[in-house]
Amino acid sequence: MIYFDNAATTKPLSTAILSSNELNDKLYFNPSALYREGISAKAVIKDCKEKILSFLKTEDHEVVFTSCGSESDNQAVFCAKKRGIFVTDLGEHSAIYQSFSELKNRGLSVHFVELNQDGSVNTDNLYDFIKNNPDVSFVSIVHVNNETGAINDINSIAKNIKAINKNIVFHSDGVQAFGKIPFRLDKNIDLYSISAHKINGLKGTGALIKRKGLNLFPLIFGGGQENGLRSGTENVFGINVFRLAAENRYKNLRESLDKITEIRNYIKDNIDKSIFDIISGETSSPYIFTVSAKGVRGETVMHLLEEKNIIVGNGSACSSKQKHSRVIKACGYSENVLDGVIRISFSPENTIEEAIIFTKELNETVKTLKGIIGK
Amino acid sequence: MIYFDNAATTKPLSTAILSSNELNDKLYFNPSALYREGISAKAVIKDCKEKILSFLKTEDHEVVFTSCGSESDNQAVFCAKKRGIFVTDLGEHSAIYQSFSELKNRGLSVHFVELNQDGSVNTDNLYDFIKNNPDVSFVSIVHVNNETGAINDINSIAKNIKAINKNIVFHSDGVQAFGKIPFRLDKNIDLYSISAHKINGLKGTGALIKRKGLNLFPLIFGGGQENGLRSGTENVFGINVFRLAAENRYKNLRESLDKITEIRNYIKDNIDKSIFDIISGETSSPYIFTVSAKGVRGETVMHLLEEKNIIVGNGSACSSKQKHSRVIKACGYSENVLDGVIRISFSPENTIEEAIIFTKELNETVKTLKGIIGK
Repeated sequence: MIYFDNAATTKPLSTAILSSNELNDKLYFNPSALYREGISAKAVIKDCKEKILSFLKTEDHEVVFTSCGSESDNQAVFCAKKRGIFVTDLGEHSAIYQSFSELKNRGLSVHFVELNQDGSVNTDNLYDFIKNNPDVSFVSIVHVNNETGAINDINSIAKNIKAINKNIVFHSDGVQAFGKIPFRLDKNIDLYSISAHKINGLKGTGALIKRKGLNLFPLIFGGGQENGLRSGTENVFGINVFRLAAENRYKNLRESLDKITEIRNYIKDNIDKSIFDIISGETSSPYIFTVSAKGVRGETVMHLLEEKNIIVGNGSACSSKQKHSRVIKACGYSENVLDGVIRISFSPENTIEEAIIFTKELNETVKTLKGIIGK
Repeated sequence: MIYFDNAATTKPLSTAILSSNELNDKLYFNPSALYREGISAKAVIKDCKEKILSFLKTEDHEVVFTSCGSESDNQAVFCAKKRGIFVTDLGEHSAIYQSFSELKNRGLSVHFVELNQDGSVNTDNLYDFIKNNPDVSFVSIVHVNNETGAINDINSIAKNIKAINKNIVFHSDGVQAFGKIPFRLDKNIDLYSISAHKINGLKGTGALIKRKGLNLFPLIFGGGQENGLRSGTENVFGINVFRLAAENRYKNLRESLDKITEIRNYIKDNIDKSIFDIISGETSSPYIFTVSAKGVRGETVMHLLEEKNIIVGNGSACSSKQKHSRVIKACGYSENVLDGVIRISFSPENTIEEAIIFTKELNETVKTLKGIIGK
């Protein structure tokens, strides 16, 4: 099988699971327990935190482990600021977008900044809005757009925003960036969400990275785990798999990026330009490559490829109930382009050989569908 | 090692993990994905839900998978009712207790009902309060008190509450009951929280069981998973381990209860009554047996037993930062009893042989500490 839907989820790293199984067999104790074994379980968590911060090259932040990227995003949106204007952009993952809809339902002021055609945020509009609205209290801008791969330069955006209004809390959803894009988390970024299962970790583990000293409230109250910021018995096993999966990504970060760029470029260069529109921009993350088979339905292409043992996505799996991708629509595309959207997304396990087979099959599938070549 | 802190967490069932590993190797796909493999992953979740409902012998409810019991409790408290008086009791786990403190911080009315000496809720006080306060909108009463093991007859409590005011939403934290106590979830119970890691599942998986037709809001917004009630990519692996661990408990539920009753009774009959006060009541769950080594510190006893490779708890691990157990205090005990609290909690893997060794060591340890016998 050729699996090119790695932005939806990835295959868990079996060596990470195997070596973490000991935590279930021998160190399954409650990390809050005061006996030696509980303290040892807690030490594992501390070690994982240090590793994750080292990958982000920061000493200005600390880690709050959560159950997923969505939870991290929700805690950022709901638990950093209680009033003022909340600003985000139209290219966010549903975990931010729907949280902002909920803020609005609760009577708070929200504002969505427009996108450029590649899915990156229109920073001029963003800065103008903040200059004109001193009540802006919270800004969330996704690091890598999960539908187009557009990279927002969040370190620079955070810096510019703080220069306009230093009281703003700046959050970024880094779920499609962490473990993929070389990046140093700047101290201007107050909050940063990451997820394990997008980088060969397990589903059910995420983290919210917070700037030391930032005032943050819990989303989940209880036993006071994670320095009172996230209650619930810590998922030590999942956390350790997360750390090992991240380690595996970071030890080859540049090499993987080069390899995936090569894969992406092969597909980009060899898909039939007479039938495909390329949606992902020139400077996008190579991990996500989105095209449109204009005039046919992306979902149909997906299902036909499935018959050939090839898996691709059609937009975010998380918004599978909508007819069109809200994000690609916000990039300014017309209905017939939106119909044909196919998201091709990679992982370091993918190979150039897969890309060659895939491109041939993709071209043929769409040509057949369009009646250009016979069935 | 003799592990008698199973109310804090249990050892994950290795066969459940082994047979679920296939979900990480071969069915790791995103359950929201529209291709066959995603749909298969989603079918696993559906199957797990049906099983869990069958264990609770209900057709009136549905399952919302969450990341833990604490999250389930939080969603019940914060996402069922937005106004009115919120009522609970002084014997709740921190996930309810601290959520109620947060309700209060947000300006909502909360009321805590007192406990009987065994840790069960004083139902006369509960019903009186509800009769006198027609604005009560939400009531949460723990099923099995996690510090004393006291069982509240929640089916009967829910029925009586609804007879007084049918508009009240009734929730129960069933974390220490599910997989332990024979029980049919009655339709008068609107919401019921359960957790995997207390019954040999993995940390990081829980569920909120909700009555069909109950109006519930999400705590975590995003991709709309779990019928819009809990966003975030589903932890299929953890969910399947949860189901298998529960299956393992329910297939021997009565036999395990008898065995653990025998273990509990051996300890109860053979601890030295001249040095121990028994806190758990006659009708408590046998899975939790709490005593006080009055006059010495429970934590010291715990550490001395640890040296003999015996692990017990001293009150809820989740409230390890407090000097005394808030719950045992609410049972009406004096400071010197509170100092000496030791929670002994069981799992079906425990044996009567362990109980015999344990009782001898416990008696000797406390006698030595008190200087009754020489070191």
